[in-house]
Amino acid sequence: MEVNGDTSNGKIKKTLNIAIIGGGLVGSMAALHLGKKGHQIHLYEYREDIRKAQLAKGRSINLSLSARGRVALAEVGLEEELLQHGIPMYGRMLHDLNGNMTFVPYDRNTKQCIYSVGRKKLNEILLNTAEKYTNIHFNFNRKLISARFREGQMEFKDPITNELHKATADLVIGCDGAYSAVRKNMLSTPGFNFSQSYIQHGYLELCIPALDGQFAMPHNYLHIWPRGEFMMIALPNQDKTWTVTLFMPFKKFEDLKSACDLVQFFDENFPDAIPLIGEKRLISDFFSLKPQHLISIKCYPYHISSKVLLLGDAAHAMVPFYGQGMNAGFEDCTILSRILDNPNVQIADVLKSFSECRHQDAHAICDLAMYNYIEMRDLVRTRKFRIRKALDEFLHKLMPLKWIPLYNSVTFTTMPYRKCLENRNWQDKVLTRTFATILTFTGCFVIVYLYNIFFALGNRN
Amino acid sequence: MEVNGDTSNGKIKKTLNIAIIGGGLVGSMAALHLGKKGHQIHLYEYREDIRKAQLAKGRSINLSLSARGRVALAEVGLEEELLQHGIPMYGRMLHDLNGNMTFVPYDRNTKQCIYSVGRKKLNEILLNTAEKYTNIHFNFNRKLISARFREGQMEFKDPITNELHKATADLVIGCDGAYSAVRKNMLSTPGFNFSQSYIQHGYLELCIPALDGQFAMPHNYLHIWPRGEFMMIALPNQDKTWTVTLFMPFKKFEDLKSACDLVQFFDENFPDAIPLIGEKRLISDFFSLKPQHLISIKCYPYHISSKVLLLGDAAHAMVPFYGQGMNAGFEDCTILSRILDNPNVQIADVLKSFSECRHQDAHAICDLAMYNYIEMRDLVRTRKFRIRKALDEFLHKLMPLKWIPLYNSVTFTTMPYRKCLENRNWQDKVLTRTFATILTFTGCFVIVYLYNIFFALGNRN
Repeated sequence: MEVNGDTSNGKIKKTLNIAIIGGGLVGSMAALHLGKKGHQIHLYEYREDIRKAQLAKGRSINLSLSARGRVALAEVGLEEELLQHGIPMYGRMLHDLNGNMTFVPYDRNTKQCIYSVGRKKLNEILLNTAEKYTNIHFNFNRKLISARFREGQMEFKDPITNELHKATADLVIGCDGAYSAVRKNMLSTPGFNFSQSYIQHGYLELCIPALDGQFAMPHNYLHIWPRGEFMMIALPNQDKTWTVTLFMPFKKFEDLKSACDLVQFFDENFPDAIPLIGEKRLISDFFSLKPQHLISIKCYPYHISSKVLLLGDAAHAMVPFYGQGMNAGFEDCTILSRILDNPNVQIADVLKSFSECRHQDAHAICDLAMYNYIEMRDLVRTRKFRIRKALDEFLHKLMPLKWIPLYNSVTFTTMPYRKCLENRNWQDKVLTRTFATILTFTGCFVIVYLYNIFFALGNRN
Repeated sequence: MEVNGDTSNGKIKKTLNIAIIGGGLVGSMAALHLGKKGHQIHLYEYREDIRKAQLAKGRSINLSLSARGRVALAEVGLEEELLQHGIPMYGRMLHDLNGNMTFVPYDRNTKQCIYSVGRKKLNEILLNTAEKYTNIHFNFNRKLISARFREGQMEFKDPITNELHKATADLVIGCDGAYSAVRKNMLSTPGFNFSQSYIQHGYLELCIPALDGQFAMPHNYLHIWPRGEFMMIALPNQDKTWTVTLFMPFKKFEDLKSACDLVQFFDENFPDAIPLIGEKRLISDFFSLKPQHLISIKCYPYHISSKVLLLGDAAHAMVPFYGQGMNAGFEDCTILSRILDNPNVQIADVLKSFSECRHQDAHAICDLAMYNYIEMRDLVRTRKFRIRKALDEFLHKLMPLKWIPLYNSVTFTTMPYRKCLENRNWQDKVLTRTFATILTFTGCFVIVYLYNIFFALGNRN
């Protein structure tokens, strides 16, 4: 079936010639959202077509899909298809040093879940759908090498043939990830604020193979081995394998020089994971890969006049600990799409509105993602965290619309990220004041009680 | 007289082939410091030789030289020469709305001063001195267009002839300012943290001409017209003119659309400046220039292995409100030079030490410069600021080595910037506690006094 984007709904004043740089998840999602509105979309991807390619080893191969991502998928009619390919995860399964597992649900009341989905599968579905639109055009093997965005001019190089290709567009949308070439070009624009920061921890991906054709661990959970300074997690894949990711300080990675060091380290910290991964496979995978860096990116504004816009990781790459990178990128598409629906707005104002309404939310989720690393590797083990979680669950059950715990608001609602953070700060304040009041009353009660005792003793004398 | 850098003092294990990118103030100062040690220095500057060029209108033409800059100059034997070309400024001369002037000295006790120096003159003196070294080689009209620093390979383009030039070096030092091409090349290095942020205010340079061949205002001061949301300053030049800089929000610049708007604005805010600048000149200068952006840059680390290093604005551009941009850049040269003096250290360790010891100080002065904008445009007018200043001066006189006010420690000492900030925080704490104690004692005294009165009244009854 061929589809042609709708140009007749009266909402689009002009059909734009849009270049989307980057054909990954956010790029292809943006192509669908904008293609649906009838614009001419030219998608440029510097790699080959992912549908024909093998994913590079060590690159993150699965992701967690939650509410914001689902909304964006639903708007292009793909939510159901995606969920069929995803594996629901209802909570965290914590592994202690003895291999004992504790289940900590994401939402004990409503039993909501997130989905582990394969990056390649998801990208394929998006591209296959986009391909059905006659107004969406693919250009693979096109690396952006220079651009004059104000004139809408770009030059691409084919990395295989080294041929140069020129192109023009009314609007260029950079969906080219954390190391965005589009953003690099915007860097010298006066007034463009930008920061990139790396954390001192790296990550390395390992694998737990299927066991007799089945999952080797209970599979409807995100498994975590929290160890304070470092941690390991595992997400289930459709083929019954697990993608295991070890996060720890680079210094610690460097200390593991030999197979012996590695096995001893696993033996001390993740003893139950050794038989699951297999000692031989653990050693060969660990030493064939280099730990990768984790970057966090903030910038503002996301646009230049009516000519360029950044979406997804290109605008706000974050560390992966809230599982929101892809979801935030997909939500960018939903939000941009909604602003574009306003019939009386110029494209320059659309981009400005997007920058204004989105950057504070993106900054908030970047900060939250950084914070969640501490929670995942450390706090989930503490009593304080569990008491707070129980309290949050209780209050959430009592007031489901008023008291939404932070993780739930980020993961299971589309509340703006900034509001999620403000909401949490408000909750903290309420709890602190409540406890302070309780303590004061208790104190008063104790004083009165003691006074009465002394008085009684005095009277007896 | 020709000079050849000293290669025989035993401190330098190996003569390095060093490429310095940028022949501005910090670049030529670095060339002198390193050339003095006997290294082969190749200085690449993308503009023509400043000694043969006219300075572009609107670019900052004078700077304030203080202790840190003087130390770096002294080490290459140029302090005295520079001071002869500088104009001492002993404090701030505040202009109120009626044109009345109030003198606020930088240091009432020691009468220390900063010097207004011309950028071009200073650069010329540095280049002329560097030219005398046979091991310092100049390459003007060389724009860095690509680099593979790890291999020490660079490619330059002559902006006039478009010819390409290749070069290699053991070590590349980026002294190419806030928009550094060297830093841009480092941006994709994993682990390189970077931020650039613009303030919402811009600046525009005007001029007060000489009056009958003399300065039109008392000239041993930094003149300030503080107006809260915006401000204007003036620094004296050797030719008896003043460089006047107007700092204000871009929005406010945009509001001044016509000559009439401009004159009315000056009439309301800087009435005494109109006859000094001249109404005609004010209008023509104001509308022939565009307000410029003010950027603040932080990064870390400043180096990659033993191959590249950033100095000056390339590493830590700051807003100009503390007058420390050049001084901090010159201090970089002093510090690098001292670390290099250690005979037993490898170049990779030299660069690492420099990054480690310098980045926190640079971050501190970037933050202080941002803060000083508020002080200059707003606080200098307030009573609280003046009381604090008087108190600081009193305590500084009492304990000259123990109580050094923030501005003095930054401007008149070489105390690491970070320590200056810590020192100020400590002073704030001491003052707050002292006042709290005084208040408590006063409170107690009042209570006892009142109690006695009531008691006395009770007895009388």
